[in-house]
Amino acid sequence: MTVQTLPESAKEVRQLIRTGQWRGITSGVAPGHVQANLAILPRDLAFDFLLFCQRNPKPCPLLEVIEPGKVEPVITAPGADIRTDVPAYRIYENGVFTGETESLVDYWRDDLVSFLLGCSFSFENAMVEAGIPLRHQELGLNVAMYITNIPTTPAGVFSGPTVVSMRPVKRDQIVRAVQVTSRFPATHGAPIHIGKPEDIGILDLDKPDFGDRVELLSDEEPVFWACGVTPQAVALSCKPPLMFAHGPGKMFITDQRDVDYAVL
Amino acid sequence: MTVQTLPESAKEVRQLIRTGQWRGITSGVAPGHVQANLAILPRDLAFDFLLFCQRNPKPCPLLEVIEPGKVEPVITAPGADIRTDVPAYRIYENGVFTGETESLVDYWRDDLVSFLLGCSFSFENAMVEAGIPLRHQELGLNVAMYITNIPTTPAGVFSGPTVVSMRPVKRDQIVRAVQVTSRFPATHGAPIHIGKPEDIGILDLDKPDFGDRVELLSDEEPVFWACGVTPQAVALSCKPPLMFAHGPGKMFITDQRDVDYAVL
Repeated sequence: MTVQTLPESAKEVRQLIRTGQWRGITSGVAPGHVQANLAILPRDLAFDFLLFCQRNPKPCPLLEVIEPGKVEPVITAPGADIRTDVPAYRIYENGVFTGETESLVDYWRDDLVSFLLGCSFSFENAMVEAGIPLRHQELGLNVAMYITNIPTTPAGVFSGPTVVSMRPVKRDQIVRAVQVTSRFPATHGAPIHIGKPEDIGILDLDKPDFGDRVELLSDEEPVFWACGVTPQAVALSCKPPLMFAHGPGKMFITDQRDVDYAVL
Repeated sequence: MTVQTLPESAKEVRQLIRTGQWRGITSGVAPGHVQANLAILPRDLAFDFLLFCQRNPKPCPLLEVIEPGKVEPVITAPGADIRTDVPAYRIYENGVFTGETESLVDYWRDDLVSFLLGCSFSFENAMVEAGIPLRHQELGLNVAMYITNIPTTPAGVFSGPTVVSMRPVKRDQIVRAVQVTSRFPATHGAPIHIGKPEDIGILDLDKPDFGDRVELLSDEEPVFWACGVTPQAVALSCKPPLMFAHGPGKMFITDQRDVDYAVL
């Protein structure tokens, strides 16, 4: 089954995932719906992590937090089950990746707290609609991501550098790119740097820390946005005894629409 | 010492409070600085309360959360001490008001978590600067506040109705009032209702649940904003064994400026 034949309804797509009929990359799936990064942590780390997200809303924009032991995202996707409705899950034990699974049912515990965090798809859609092309999408690449020298604001046991994604933007479209992405603070929002990678500790734009290298043309500036990899990297760096996350590119699809999160 | 002779620096005002030289109402003090509502709760309620604020950002806009046992608001007022730098504190035991104190030093415990929440002074300043008069200020009254039928989104043990404040706005200034207050989401932001008190469960505008009655003229509509009384009322309704709050009208004055919190 290809992306093209998937239903447009987020609920129906989640049903296909839950029943094992589809487990692909979610980019472009259920167009217009907000997709979420997932991090699941034991309750004794949950206060610190929630506070970390509160203090670092640009890299860690919280869409919903599901209370300890509960599995239904009642705010963003009533009826969904966070244990079964993501195409793939990654398992981390003591901060180390130990495997993937298609369901968390057998792993579930009463003390697990699920964090759903905004991802860049919403503002990328807004950019494309505003006529600002995205080279990585056009070339079928992953966005280029870099570890910066911009510290996050620590909270409890959690601290670490901000990870950013980079998109080349033509100089005559930078203002518009700032405007359209500023409308989506819940999904990383406005850029955090424009123009000089060295200023934020990126020494070689051709060597991203994650994702693919994306070429920069002479009439473009590199524009950097806070990236949802940040909370995952920060969470893992404190080596939690158990943590689950979504598989790369395989996000949780909510019932909410990009436009629901637009300010102004 | 009157308000007029107070220093303009937030830090200097806090020093006068800490040393017992001034303990007045903070409205109009250290102009342009963001002031905060205060709620202090034991750690075992802190995750639920933090989640409650995350789910209800309009009535509960978090400016800073100070970690368990710590007393310095390192983000909004480095060097300050949350136990001594508020003009008056209210003590609640099992949800019941049991007294006021000028210092929390003798009450402090290692498990106490301090929540600083945005207050309406920032957007009120923006309204006045935009030429929208505030009748309650002009008359020296407290703003009129009402318990509505708009439920907050519950989190853990916390739930309850949204409390709103009402300001009469001339019909030809309503658009501008929405615009200027929308710029301050961290301090309650845009109104949540305009025009018909009955629609949100307010049966008699002349009988506010808190604060003072404020007259509505024939060329005005009542405009309602989410109010910082909400988190305090909700916190108390679950009868926490211990809770501290600021004394009425006696807020914590941060080093940050209104403009730091303006979006766009």
